[in-house]
Amino acid sequence: MHTMRDPILLTPGPLTTSLATKTAMLNDWGSWDSEFNRLTADVCARLLALIESNEHVCVPLQGSGTFAVEAAVGTLVPHEGKLLVLANGAYGKRMARLTEIMGRQLAVLDFGETSAVDPARVAAKLAEDTAITHVGLIYCETSTGILNPVREVAQVVAQAGRKLIIDAMSAFGALPLSARDVAFDAVIASSNKCLEGVPGMGFVLARRDALAAAAGNAHSLSLDLHDQWAYLSKTGQWRYTPPTHVVAALAAAMDQYDAEGGRPARLARYQANCDALLNGLSELGLMSFLAPALQAPIIVTVHAPQHANWQFTDFYERVKAEGFVLYPGKLTEVDTFRVGCIGAIGQAEIRSAVAAIGRALKAMGIHH
Amino acid sequence: MHTMRDPILLTPGPLTTSLATKTAMLNDWGSWDSEFNRLTADVCARLLALIESNEHVCVPLQGSGTFAVEAAVGTLVPHEGKLLVLANGAYGKRMARLTEIMGRQLAVLDFGETSAVDPARVAAKLAEDTAITHVGLIYCETSTGILNPVREVAQVVAQAGRKLIIDAMSAFGALPLSARDVAFDAVIASSNKCLEGVPGMGFVLARRDALAAAAGNAHSLSLDLHDQWAYLSKTGQWRYTPPTHVVAALAAAMDQYDAEGGRPARLARYQANCDALLNGLSELGLMSFLAPALQAPIIVTVHAPQHANWQFTDFYERVKAEGFVLYPGKLTEVDTFRVGCIGAIGQAEIRSAVAAIGRALKAMGIHH
Repeated sequence: MHTMRDPILLTPGPLTTSLATKTAMLNDWGSWDSEFNRLTADVCARLLALIESNEHVCVPLQGSGTFAVEAAVGTLVPHEGKLLVLANGAYGKRMARLTEIMGRQLAVLDFGETSAVDPARVAAKLAEDTAITHVGLIYCETSTGILNPVREVAQVVAQAGRKLIIDAMSAFGALPLSARDVAFDAVIASSNKCLEGVPGMGFVLARRDALAAAAGNAHSLSLDLHDQWAYLSKTGQWRYTPPTHVVAALAAAMDQYDAEGGRPARLARYQANCDALLNGLSELGLMSFLAPALQAPIIVTVHAPQHANWQFTDFYERVKAEGFVLYPGKLTEVDTFRVGCIGAIGQAEIRSAVAAIGRALKAMGIHH
Repeated sequence: MHTMRDPILLTPGPLTTSLATKTAMLNDWGSWDSEFNRLTADVCARLLALIESNEHVCVPLQGSGTFAVEAAVGTLVPHEGKLLVLANGAYGKRMARLTEIMGRQLAVLDFGETSAVDPARVAAKLAEDTAITHVGLIYCETSTGILNPVREVAQVVAQAGRKLIIDAMSAFGALPLSARDVAFDAVIASSNKCLEGVPGMGFVLARRDALAAAAGNAHSLSLDLHDQWAYLSKTGQWRYTPPTHVVAALAAAMDQYDAEGGRPARLARYQANCDALLNGLSELGLMSFLAPALQAPIIVTVHAPQHANWQFTDFYERVKAEGFVLYPGKLTEVDTFRVGCIGAIGQAEIRSAVAAIGRALKAMGIHH
């Protein structure tokens, strides 16, 4: 038995979007038409404005965020290049895997699943392995919710004369990231995270000079960011059929983003959501997995209760029946579940979700 | 000055979709949730049913149709394999280009832009080049609207013991294609053509045995169809964030497809659209580019009027101001434009479009 309304998605994207964002999909757009070209140009300009740079360009790409990460690595890291991936969770591992599959040289610094990336270890690795040309960093590692020190890592990478590629998927638009104080060749994100659009496209904000030098690098036609950018620059159009309705939804989502007060307001709402969630869970006796200093206000990993009656799917269905969709854990050695703080939701939804979690635990005989 | 309603898209996808299809995007879905898994399974089962096969599986993929073509070639053609592309337009050339970029061996038989693929030439080529393991065919070459003889080519390929990969992008769901009488390893299409969904995903209907043997072939993680299939089989989920709203729209579009009477009814409507278009254009003195025998009822390529006042963008804007979006030509040596016959439209829209075209030509001083 489910609620009559759509459940609130407490997941790290796809997430709950506003009705205004969804109704923006009630039009059909010609992908060749000047009005759609203007929509694309407008979305790109607004994404680019978020990083405060005149030296980067925005290249939108069809597919999920992973497609955009693969496109950025395959296009920007040349055949003779070598990528050092800084891994502390599933998304770092995925960046390493896609680099390996496309046949680029790869090194991985693994920080485990419970520590942030350590800039000092990165500096040592870059000093030791001179073949490394690029460094890949996950801003917020969604598999746990760890916040990585992007500023400090960027400094170390720049000092060592290497290039930084940031997977900012679940951070972009909420956590600070300006080209004025962080040096990066590319930052990658998608429509359906903190910008609160619907899923179906990613984008890469890449340094114009790095992209211009990247012709012919890509291992894939579909994922060739240089080709996508060159065609877009020449025609105003996406190379291949764009997800027109997804682009229109993102444009509407960005109108609401601006109306809310932009990045500071978005972060403040998410931080308040996260605080309310952490407080509520703590009152229920549930323990957050991460130390507070490591916790990004994006998604919270929670220790599963140590109780014989605990079973995630049972718990999940009970909480869902009250109208809230949670997310399973992604850790290999610890039993956890996850609760997202992002999407078109506020503290009211978080408090209701916490209450539903409490009732589920009670009904399962885990809490009294 | 444009019309107040959305223009009718006489384009080969994105195209005009029904309101029921678009309103299906007014819900948010959790990508991990069992309800979304059921939606995916349902869409896949219905796509698979269209080819009447128990030996194929459906693998949906994020991105545009080209992403799915690249995924099929990269996954199904092994590293030591060789693909023969049968080209008679831009989409055949694109299949060749993506094969080359991923580093697979490639041969191309080019039939120009005005002839259908000739099965006898394919047979001769396969006899001559024994390294060829796979053959790539475009069912309807959208750059002109040419219908290729898929049945006859499939026979020749099967007789030569090779495997066939069919890009059926703009044909699937309207033109006949059954595994009962056409042997193929894979057929590729997308959500936003004859099935009348919105753009954002493609799919590959691949032979189970061919896909099972294809582990480790892919040049790309994102475009690894085997990996996508293995994960979907195990979990019911897409590997990476699915375009949830696009999938929901496709499910709704397929409800309407069934209600209309399935493939025969869809083809009959498109054929009637195409006939009305060809008659109407002919009455205006405009000449269709293709001989009637080559013309698929999907998109019509029209010779531009030979008149000093002709200018496509002027013409396009005039017709658009009356509410109809046309498509530019894609031929290299002949001045043409294109008019699509597909989408949630019937003969009424086609007749109105023809009338608008006539008024535009009159206003441009081309017709009296």
